[in-house]
Amino acid sequence: MRMTGLCVVLGVLLLGFVAAEGNVTDASTTGATVASTTGSLDGPLKWGIVAAGKISNDWAAALASLPKEEHQMVAIAARDAGRAADFAKTFNIPKSYGSYAELAKDPNVNIVYIGTIHPTHYEIVKMMLENDKHVLCEKPMTLWVNHTEELVQLAREKKKFLQEAVWSRFFPAYRTLRQVLKEEKIGEMKMVSAVMGIAMPNTPRLHRKHLGGGALMDLGSYTIQLAVAVFGNEMPETIKAVATLNNESVDTNLAMILQWKSGGIAQLSASSLVLMNNDAMIFGTNGTIKLPGHFWCPDEIVYKRTTEGLQTLKHEKREFPKIDHKTNFKHGAGMVYQAQEVHRSISNGFLESPLMTHDESILFAKIEQEVKKQIGVTYQDLYKDQKYCGENCNV
Amino acid sequence: MRMTGLCVVLGVLLLGFVAAEGNVTDASTTGATVASTTGSLDGPLKWGIVAAGKISNDWAAALASLPKEEHQMVAIAARDAGRAADFAKTFNIPKSYGSYAELAKDPNVNIVYIGTIHPTHYEIVKMMLENDKHVLCEKPMTLWVNHTEELVQLAREKKKFLQEAVWSRFFPAYRTLRQVLKEEKIGEMKMVSAVMGIAMPNTPRLHRKHLGGGALMDLGSYTIQLAVAVFGNEMPETIKAVATLNNESVDTNLAMILQWKSGGIAQLSASSLVLMNNDAMIFGTNGTIKLPGHFWCPDEIVYKRTTEGLQTLKHEKREFPKIDHKTNFKHGAGMVYQAQEVHRSISNGFLESPLMTHDESILFAKIEQEVKKQIGVTYQDLYKDQKYCGENCNV
Repeated sequence: MRMTGLCVVLGVLLLGFVAAEGNVTDASTTGATVASTTGSLDGPLKWGIVAAGKISNDWAAALASLPKEEHQMVAIAARDAGRAADFAKTFNIPKSYGSYAELAKDPNVNIVYIGTIHPTHYEIVKMMLENDKHVLCEKPMTLWVNHTEELVQLAREKKKFLQEAVWSRFFPAYRTLRQVLKEEKIGEMKMVSAVMGIAMPNTPRLHRKHLGGGALMDLGSYTIQLAVAVFGNEMPETIKAVATLNNESVDTNLAMILQWKSGGIAQLSASSLVLMNNDAMIFGTNGTIKLPGHFWCPDEIVYKRTTEGLQTLKHEKREFPKIDHKTNFKHGAGMVYQAQEVHRSISNGFLESPLMTHDESILFAKIEQEVKKQIGVTYQDLYKDQKYCGENCNV
Repeated sequence: MRMTGLCVVLGVLLLGFVAAEGNVTDASTTGATVASTTGSLDGPLKWGIVAAGKISNDWAAALASLPKEEHQMVAIAARDAGRAADFAKTFNIPKSYGSYAELAKDPNVNIVYIGTIHPTHYEIVKMMLENDKHVLCEKPMTLWVNHTEELVQLAREKKKFLQEAVWSRFFPAYRTLRQVLKEEKIGEMKMVSAVMGIAMPNTPRLHRKHLGGGALMDLGSYTIQLAVAVFGNEMPETIKAVATLNNESVDTNLAMILQWKSGGIAQLSASSLVLMNNDAMIFGTNGTIKLPGHFWCPDEIVYKRTTEGLQTLKHEKREFPKIDHKTNFKHGAGMVYQAQEVHRSISNGFLESPLMTHDESILFAKIEQEVKKQIGVTYQDLYKDQKYCGENCNV
């Protein structure tokens, strides 16, 4: 597909109704205007992987299980060249580098996955876009709104695909969620309640300021994306947040209330100290939707109608795709869905997925920035000598 | 038991360790200082029932099932004498009155149950105490802190038992909850998450200002009592609340965050528009406690240890006492536990139950008042011509 201007918009609208895969249709349900066009995709996505940590392992495991006509891993970079080489061996990747800059210069790479810690995202995404790579970057995309805005702007200028890796959005259960919400059989949505807690008291990434630690950015961001999926892509009218901070002023226990103009309220909490049930519930005037267990990577969705007696209308439970490699994170195999969506989006010439748009990434960053302000968490120390965070240094 | 002064205090402390029923022991776990003494109880509690509505029906049903040596219903009063007479017939109550004042003057009544709507509680409790009756008043005790404080003061002066009817506190599952918290096997409590939503869009009591409507006072108050039971009887350091109001400025959809000095956070929500799952979860560093379904009147409690793998340590599920009459509210038969506790407390000469103290009623009122202020709900219109609410008129 190769189109520009108005033609593309019409093409996207049309795709909204005919797409066999169903996902593109979702553009109309999210109300997203999908920026285009990345130009055509000749051959497979040729992935460069940035960082050789746990999450990169899971991403590579997902890619390795997909058809070679669509996804190939061509390079891996880590700060430690030895680790990069080991990773390359594990996943049979032809090239490994000891620096991200080398990977950025590799002409064979056409898309980069970034699995580093949060504070590094901004610089690495920028470098990859400037080197004309499409980018999939782990969430949160950056630590500040203006950084995210700048990267989105750059991606659009460079006509490269950019996505924050909110993998939740691509799970079949989320597709069902959007469908149920669209059908409006559960009436008007009034409340979202979601908790995400994983006991990781000794995991430095979660608790150290210089690593971008904090329950909000790591866990709470998943609860925010769910609320936005339900109540729509606009800034809440009211945000109220409370947290407990550790001795580095990093949030470990967090509760947030978001209220939208529609009246919808999201009651969200996150903790890096305690294991929670990790359910998400959506309550409407005629019914409820539950994403049980790990709501951010669910294998199940239950939709009940609460009028005329409690009645289960939908209960989907499904196996994830079989993949050969072991994953570190719960339901890691579900990353396959995200890979498929990235391929579909780029094939369609999109600069963003209609299921996880640039505007949403900016919105998440805005909500997170307001929450950080209220709970007294700032990452300014990370950059105080670098003139890096600009006016966001105080947030 | 007949004691005064220091002697009573020692008696109470002693009882704290020897009471066979287990409930009195809870005084030490709640840290409550139990005010005394009501004097001796000669013979049964002789109940006067105020109001002939649904909740009074359930209370009478519970009393009717208990031994006559402990509980007798001797009078019922309603504004409509005919309804009072019908109620008397149903429950075989010898006297019925068409006004609460007549019941207050009945010398045969030694304790009064008040099942009227919220805005009337203050005046009726006051009248009953002034007529030397013990009082059990439905929650919330009053609409303002100073009214609750005044009633507590009056009860202490009159040496009469006074209790806000937070029936939750007396369920066996709550006894287990206190025990599990006391044993500290689930580590440090970090988060309480509780939702209470019942779809009652057409129930005037919930939605009309002049009836004292509002999700907070009717439903949210149950979530607050749970959080206080977990994190202790002191004012939260931070309270943040958001609500959707109806066209009478009554809250219909509500979310609250309470944070205590200990760092414990309660994430609470309530709705009079949507049916919620109505679970309460308590998350500690070593485990979780769940009060499933109707957490405010539970027949079940599940306690899991989350360290060393997820492990269910306690799962109690029990039948409620069999009672002859039909009840209107879910688990209405569980009101028997509250009746037993009232009898036990008064028999022990207490002015308050150690499981639901005067201080807690005042604390609930303080928390509710702050929430009302933040969400913009005021009941001043109810009393503006009556010089009734004093400085609370603006809240």
